[in-house]
Amino acid sequence: MPEPTKQDLLVGVDLGGTKILAGVFTPGLKLIQSTKLSTKAERGFDAVVERISRCIRDAVDEADLSLKQIRGIGIGAPGAVDPDSGEVIFAPNLQWKGMPLKKALEKALNLPVFVENDCNICTLGVHESELKGKPRNMIGIFLGTGVGGGLILEGKLYGGFNRTAGELGHMVIQVGGPKCGCGNNGCFEALASRTAIFREIQRAVKEGGRTVLTEMLGDNLADLKSGDLRKALRKGDKLVEKVIESAAEYTGIAVANLINVFNPEVVVVGGGVIDALEDEMMSIIVETALDYAMPGTTQGIEIIATKLGDFAGITGGAVLARQRTK
Amino acid sequence: MPEPTKQDLLVGVDLGGTKILAGVFTPGLKLIQSTKLSTKAERGFDAVVERISRCIRDAVDEADLSLKQIRGIGIGAPGAVDPDSGEVIFAPNLQWKGMPLKKALEKALNLPVFVENDCNICTLGVHESELKGKPRNMIGIFLGTGVGGGLILEGKLYGGFNRTAGELGHMVIQVGGPKCGCGNNGCFEALASRTAIFREIQRAVKEGGRTVLTEMLGDNLADLKSGDLRKALRKGDKLVEKVIESAAEYTGIAVANLINVFNPEVVVVGGGVIDALEDEMMSIIVETALDYAMPGTTQGIEIIATKLGDFAGITGGAVLARQRTK
Repeated sequence: MPEPTKQDLLVGVDLGGTKILAGVFTPGLKLIQSTKLSTKAERGFDAVVERISRCIRDAVDEADLSLKQIRGIGIGAPGAVDPDSGEVIFAPNLQWKGMPLKKALEKALNLPVFVENDCNICTLGVHESELKGKPRNMIGIFLGTGVGGGLILEGKLYGGFNRTAGELGHMVIQVGGPKCGCGNNGCFEALASRTAIFREIQRAVKEGGRTVLTEMLGDNLADLKSGDLRKALRKGDKLVEKVIESAAEYTGIAVANLINVFNPEVVVVGGGVIDALEDEMMSIIVETALDYAMPGTTQGIEIIATKLGDFAGITGGAVLARQRTK
Repeated sequence: MPEPTKQDLLVGVDLGGTKILAGVFTPGLKLIQSTKLSTKAERGFDAVVERISRCIRDAVDEADLSLKQIRGIGIGAPGAVDPDSGEVIFAPNLQWKGMPLKKALEKALNLPVFVENDCNICTLGVHESELKGKPRNMIGIFLGTGVGGGLILEGKLYGGFNRTAGELGHMVIQVGGPKCGCGNNGCFEALASRTAIFREIQRAVKEGGRTVLTEMLGDNLADLKSGDLRKALRKGDKLVEKVIESAAEYTGIAVANLINVFNPEVVVVGGGVIDALEDEMMSIIVETALDYAMPGTTQGIEIIATKLGDFAGITGGAVLARQRTK
């Protein structure tokens, strides 16, 4: 790799409720270095800004680079964001309301900063880096603690009228279904997120169901993680298998809904749940989606899992920084 | 109105499973004359083309105009359409597969003909004529025998990868819900179309429910029409009220889903069911949609019923003809 010229590099940041991930990228979106730090949201906005700034400085320094070589910083925040002002309008996981993230970080680092919603950023990262910007229309769906998504329309990230497009997790797919964190019932998120999967397993255990997870973690299933589900599945755990199968089926139905309405060229699925359980879930997701989508709508359409894993967010951040500093 | 110059007028056609509606429009989209003819699909493709052609000639003649004054013809067909070739790929209500509608009509009338899906055409008509092309992003939802829709994204009719976007009726909103004509269960169409409403009323009557409709139409409710429902509601019929309320709630949830995903500026609702029951359904649709949409997504967004009624399709046809003959 040739020595990058001054101010040619990009930084992408994935700001989550529990951790901050920062990555330094070449102009061609190759990851040079990444660093992780806990968010410590409970310490408040200024402290989190300081930690984001430190995480970025650490990544840059670890790669024997200097901030002077950075062209711009793109950051994905977990909530509603105004991409023009760079303000985080509302981020429940951080307990932020109307926080000037762009302004504060630009002051701390003396570099241009651009802010977007985290799922939009992940979608942008997959589209531009993994798929080389090819699909004209694409949907990204991310299954984690919650379920979020992003839309690429005619090659560009689509925000809609209030910049809130892509709230796929709150598409109701089962009227009268399980309660969602948003207050409604039967949202996609309430049926296929990590939270929903854990809730179903805990409910089954309470009802007397047997799973190796209780042997691994105790009867109350404290500290249950997506990786534990994979371990249980590999041990042939029928209870976990059934719950995961059901979450994958709901996801497939949600994918079919989006294909019926939006008919995108590519649907990309990602997030912590898929990163941990791709092998177990993807074939069911694809099969169910093709089964539920209307005839003629799926021809030539791809339904794939992203390979970017945890790095989708920082990659998308770098893409945003590249787009906005052109 | 000044005498239109030669080849300045537009024709829009709404081709349905049971009737053909043709309208002659000024370049400013003012309807001059409309004519209706039954489709008689059972007579086959050539006969239907002849009837469409006759319906257009009748409308033009009735207005004391000549085909020579027509710039182009836009037609909405009930099914999957290739708007480039003008072929109807699949129209179950007409029993058509791969029929060259554009070519056949151009031969019959010696005028440029443009073909689109009927719900796309209705959406285009509402957007361009009723809303003066203002909303950048809009969704049209039409409740009739089935449920269909269309998307305007960034000011233009959006077709998606296979030109099938807008199949809103087959968005599943109640996994495990009533069987839909498409083979799936719990589609929006299976919960809020005229067919679904009639099915629920008939089911309630079979289960011993009492309604003035049986007095009006007999116990088997033969020839039940949307207008009968309105009459029953005005007589204070509780059974019909409950079924209509429920269909309106499902529609509101579907609207919320679409707002959560696309965040359009305007959602327009139309079709035979709304034309007949706007007063009874719209307030429930809007209230439910606002209740189910995520906070922050609905600010400044309008959810309205189209005023074009039966003329949405022919108006959209005229818009298509105007756009494509520019």
